[in-house]
Amino acid sequence: MTELLTPLLNGDRRALSRAITLIESTRADHREDAITLLSQLPDRQALRIGLSGTPGVGKSTFIEAFGTLLTEKGLKVAVLAVDPSSARSGGSILGDKTRMEQLSRNPNAFIRPSPSRAELGGVARRTREAIRLCEAAGFDVVLIETVGVGQSETLVAEMSDLFILLLAPAGGDELQGVKRGIMEMADLILVNKADGDLLPTARRTVADYAGALRLLRKRPQDPENFPLAHAVSAATGDGLEQAWDEMRHLTGWRRAHGHFDATRARQARYWFQAEVRAGLLSRLDTPEARARLAELGEAVAHGKAAPGVAAAEMLDWLNG
Amino acid sequence: MTELLTPLLNGDRRALSRAITLIESTRADHREDAITLLSQLPDRQALRIGLSGTPGVGKSTFIEAFGTLLTEKGLKVAVLAVDPSSARSGGSILGDKTRMEQLSRNPNAFIRPSPSRAELGGVARRTREAIRLCEAAGFDVVLIETVGVGQSETLVAEMSDLFILLLAPAGGDELQGVKRGIMEMADLILVNKADGDLLPTARRTVADYAGALRLLRKRPQDPENFPLAHAVSAATGDGLEQAWDEMRHLTGWRRAHGHFDATRARQARYWFQAEVRAGLLSRLDTPEARARLAELGEAVAHGKAAPGVAAAEMLDWLNG
Repeated sequence: MTELLTPLLNGDRRALSRAITLIESTRADHREDAITLLSQLPDRQALRIGLSGTPGVGKSTFIEAFGTLLTEKGLKVAVLAVDPSSARSGGSILGDKTRMEQLSRNPNAFIRPSPSRAELGGVARRTREAIRLCEAAGFDVVLIETVGVGQSETLVAEMSDLFILLLAPAGGDELQGVKRGIMEMADLILVNKADGDLLPTARRTVADYAGALRLLRKRPQDPENFPLAHAVSAATGDGLEQAWDEMRHLTGWRRAHGHFDATRARQARYWFQAEVRAGLLSRLDTPEARARLAELGEAVAHGKAAPGVAAAEMLDWLNG
Repeated sequence: MTELLTPLLNGDRRALSRAITLIESTRADHREDAITLLSQLPDRQALRIGLSGTPGVGKSTFIEAFGTLLTEKGLKVAVLAVDPSSARSGGSILGDKTRMEQLSRNPNAFIRPSPSRAELGGVARRTREAIRLCEAAGFDVVLIETVGVGQSETLVAEMSDLFILLLAPAGGDELQGVKRGIMEMADLILVNKADGDLLPTARRTVADYAGALRLLRKRPQDPENFPLAHAVSAATGDGLEQAWDEMRHLTGWRRAHGHFDATRARQARYWFQAEVRAGLLSRLDTPEARARLAELGEAVAHGKAAPGVAAAEMLDWLNG
């Protein structure tokens, strides 16, 4: 363990990679090692930025440009991907490093794709633990990116200090089908591709979202004007500096008012409880349990046993 | 047990009441008796009709009128309430029998209020088991009514053969804030109070919803024209006969095409799995476990332990 811990704490990217591979493993002995490693980490903090954007908004280009900007300021930047669909789609996100060619070669950046064989609960734990490893390795900013699919946005927001929604310029009415719940999670909406021919559309889109955000309830953890929307161009770099200033302003305000730590405490408690529940349910995750569950499920489906009766039998079997 | 089983199977309403009280009990020995009783029930089927409507739509009046109509056709009707808020609100639904005075005195009807100390998972199990008891007692129709609060509609739809949404006449644009997900669950939308001055508004509301329903994807388990919307008046009885005809038409079609049994099989499997999960999680439901969970939760919130490390400790404690 120590052979991994020391280089990890020194910011060695290979050690960080190996540590993430360890926490991603489902083998019982690896899991024990992972728990040991995690319990030895010092309490270093990075700014955790959740970033959601559907395919086509230029998320990779944005991360490449924004990440590079941060490294130019002397910050170390880690990028973690949360893509629960990558297992199904055959690893759509495996090309992360080619998507972000410049950043992946940057010695102050670290990019880690979403694990394959991804299942939402597993991805959540893996990502939270990977964030802690990145923090221990001395990274200043951890970007957690996700495609806007199903529950993955909620999950990422629940492990981030800031949650950013990246959108494409688009014609107004429907606000691009962004769900109200997602809007409510966003601290900052960035409309990308605000350059060239798309600039007027991007500005209109920003105005639309700014209006929609004003209709949402003001949140006690926010300073004036937040959440807010503005335009950026990952291609030209326009607006990226301003976006970073806003993130720092919001974070500073939350720190000063105690919201930053309170949110982290709430998140940690939430994930602790979620993991305990997942741990209890993992007893259903053996081949024998799955077979028994399927067998009793068939009996129930064919009316041969009441659900409650069959459930009692299954629980007896698990405890017996 | 047999002293309860025989009168229950003979349709004795007092025995049915006592049996439901038994399945509602959280005492371990009562639970064992309940499991024994449930495993002895014959496989009788009633038509399970889920009914959702927010306060003010005239749900009680509708159930009173519709239930009475069914009993006049020689059918035995049971009414079960699912109101997860009744615990908090101090039993808002305890007045069920006074709300439905005529039906509650009808020898072919049975009305059971939502249990107090209601918690959504517990209400789900209690209601499904009460449905089976009503079926065993020879009831032909079981109405499961719920207020449109949170997850309760999904829960009721998941245990019903038909799901009916009862709405009040109202001015159009927003479709009364009915969520798309709820619309998608409805087999039949009934706009109540279609009488007197409200008749034109009710008709317009029906047209609005009929239009909205046409935009939803056609479901493979439905005949032509379903899901559909029409007007009823619980006060005058207008439209109730037609509503019943539509329910029978839809049910008949689904039976003929195998969807009825397939849906019940899927629901039974779903509830079986839900109960197994709930059973595993119930180990967190002791005073000792709650205290330990709170204690470790505090340590996690204060950064003294990583969520995963504390979760491993909690699981060791539970298993140790």
